[in-house]
Amino acid sequence: MALVPMLTDNQADARARTVFDDIRATRGTDYINNIWRALANDPAQLQATWSEVKRVMAPGALDALTKELIYIAVSAANNCSYCLHTHTASARAKGMSEAMFSELMQVVYLASLTNRIAIGLQVETDARYTQPPAPVA
Amino acid sequence: MALVPMLTDNQADARARTVFDDIRATRGTDYINNIWRALANDPAQLQATWSEVKRVMAPGALDALTKELIYIAVSAANNCSYCLHTHTASARAKGMSEAMFSELMQVVYLASLTNRIAIGLQVETDARYTQPPAPVA
Amino acid sequence: MALVPMLTDNQADARARTVFDDIRATRGTDYINNIWRALANDPAQLQATWSEVKRVMAPGALDALTKELIYIAVSAANNCSYCLHTHTASARAKGMSEAMFSELMQVVYLASLTNRIAIGLQVETDARYTQPPAPVA
Amino acid sequence: MALVPMLTDNQADARARTVFDDIRATRGTDYINNIWRALANDPAQLQATWSEVKRVMAPGALDALTKELIYIAVSAANNCSYCLHTHTASARAKGMSEAMFSELMQVVYLASLTNRIAIGLQVETDARYTQPPAPVA
Amino acid sequence: MALVPMLTDNQADARARTVFDDIRATRGTDYINNIWRALANDPAQLQATWSEVKRVMAPGALDALTKELIYIAVSAANNCSYCLHTHTASARAKGMSEAMFSELMQVVYLASLTNRIAIGLQVETDARYTQPPAPVA
Amino acid sequence: MALVPMLTDNQADARARTVFDDIRATRGTDYINNIWRALANDPAQLQATWSEVKRVMAPGALDALTKELIYIAVSAANNCSYCLHTHTASARAKGMSEAMFSELMQVVYLASLTNRIAIGLQVETDARYTQPPAPVA
Repeated sequence: MALVPMLTDNQADARARTVFDDIRATRGTDYINNIWRALANDPAQLQATWSEVKRVMAPGALDALTKELIYIAVSAANNCSYCLHTHTASARAKGMSEAMFSELMQVVYLASLTNRIAIGLQVETDARYTQPPAPVA
Repeated sequence: MALVPMLTDNQADARARTVFDDIRATRGTDYINNIWRALANDPAQLQATWSEVKRVMAPGALDALTKELIYIAVSAANNCSYCLHTHTASARAKGMSEAMFSELMQVVYLASLTNRIAIGLQVETDARYTQPPAPVA
Repeated sequence: MALVPMLTDNQADARARTVFDDIRATRGTDYINNIWRALANDPAQLQATWSEVKRVMAPGALDALTKELIYIAVSAANNCSYCLHTHTASARAKGMSEAMFSELMQVVYLASLTNRIAIGLQVETDARYTQPPAPVA
Repeated sequence: MALVPMLTDNQADARARTVFDDIRATRGTDYINNIWRALANDPAQLQATWSEVKRVMAPGALDALTKELIYIAVSAANNCSYCLHTHTASARAKGMSEAMFSELMQVVYLASLTNRIAIGLQVETDARYTQPPAPVA
Repeated sequence: MALVPMLTDNQADARARTVFDDIRATRGTDYINNIWRALANDPAQLQATWSEVKRVMAPGALDALTKELIYIAVSAANNCSYCLHTHTASARAKGMSEAMFSELMQVVYLASLTNRIAIGLQVETDARYTQPPAPVA
Repeated sequence: MALVPMLTDNQADARARTVFDDIRATRGTDYINNIWRALANDPAQLQATWSEVKRVMAPGALDALTKELIYIAVSAANNCSYCLHTHTASARAKGMSEAMFSELMQVVYLASLTNRIAIGLQVETDARYTQPPAPVA
């Protein structure tokens, strides 16, 4: 059970309902996910979070599906059950095949393994990898 | 300082040197990263790990660069300094532009934020996202 | 389902029952939370843990409510569902308003984000922040 | 070494310099911390992050120092060396005494311990703590 | 609900069924745990993972029960509910007494506490502990 | 650099010096590790922590070396550089061979991998593993 109530449209205040409306318009669905109904208890945070989701997840140098894959990878590393369920559904809706999902998770597992090797043995970074790129002239 | 010595080619045993040779051949470079020289203290683990890296990171349903991006995302979530340095270098060598790196990290930051919202408020997964796909007939 | 049984007063041994009695006296309630009934399977750990809870959570330079807020923040970062539920209830009982809870969680979310920026980009600490305070004369 | 260059004022673009100016004005110092110089490589993320820091860390239902304490607690849980150094300095500048710092860290240690008990034994949340508060009428 | 279906023997492909057969033969039971039925959606990962489990968990310089204890400790640190349940059962089947389980978890709790002290205070490693052992002549 | 000064014997107060004396007597060495000198800034926490280390790490149902192995496993999972260095040294002093260290870390890597599989795919615990043992009659 969540620590705050999931606010219905009627329970949410005007600022929160404006965000709900924008979610509906942006996603072309009438359904509002639980995370937004939970955040509606704190309308300022709801607005700020939804604004960032729209900014960051829009296609740019990376396409929208690649961004979903990265999102799932982080959610798996952070053990977020809610996020794994919702973003796997979202990625499948954007075209993620089961073969892509398998390969995504394979990389997550492998990185979990090799991250732990590097950390567990306290391997120092090779000198050649500690030079930042120069800023563009 | 690592917890085990970085083994030179001369210090590594025959099984480990065989892996070193395969790394050199596969990557087209004479340089062996520290993680492999650390793992050479345990040749069976070295062989198993390198075998998985070759299997998982090869292009398939996802291309090699996308796999590097996912790897970086997991390494950031897991706080692996070694892995962040080496795989950022690897991704840049495979064509990751600075704009792609910025967007990759933006998704990592956003997921870190929204993962914590879902966890912090203990938001329950919407019923519509808890249906697994049916196995392919 | 827990990995050990929740011991009733009758099932717990004498050392554990003594701790149960002290919990009841200290908190002014007859109810014993599940974590203590689980720990009763290991009476030495039960005693040590309860002793630390009493020592640490007592008001001092920080008041009891501020300590609960910090506790919730750590529990959110560590993804402890049990602890989030029990300590949110405890903080509310000690006077945490919903506005305070919202601001607490806002800081948790923001720190989760900026922690990941500093880690993800491997930002080095500014020299001015790496000087420890001198011990008091 | 960071994965991106720390941009000087001259290297940063106009949007980033505007944020630098606002940081200087808000904090009453000419010094810009490394995290902002790193984020200047991605001006949109720099703007969004600084905007959130200003919004969230301003005093409200919780005072500014309490927010810093919560920030430190999360940074300790997330193992962020950069954030621990900078926010400990910031909290001390805002009046955190060494006794307050000790008690803050005591709660962080205790929560780390009891979080692990609840998780390690898979203790189920007591039914009485799984009722969310009703929304305000 | 899992993100992929648990494949029955009939739904799994030939490669996956071969792994199922080896699990049954190795463990002397007809029962296949859910994790293997989930991984059967990705037969290459199923084969690789099962192969590693057989290699690593076999007795060697450490006996099989000690390896299970270590496995449980990592699973507690990583907050893996599935793994805690299955490997606690496995360790008990291999002879872990309740006293051993209590002491195992005591060390997990203590390390969680002292890890957080060292990280929270950013304690630097003593010079005497940063010398790796020389490779064997 | 640590966030607090490492207190010398002369800088530490009487309570802290008493703990230092007990550490020296218990371990048969004049050397005091940095973590204790850091904790000496908070003598109550120093006393409580050292008391727990003595209680938990003493041999019982598990021998002292097995406890060190478990400690290292948790420290690797928690990414504690300080703890990995000091406890690897301690385990070696208590008889951990390099073969034992290799196998310990193999289990840590494997559990990191399979923990992530179970979490990443959100595999549900098999019904047969969710029955707690009955309390001893």
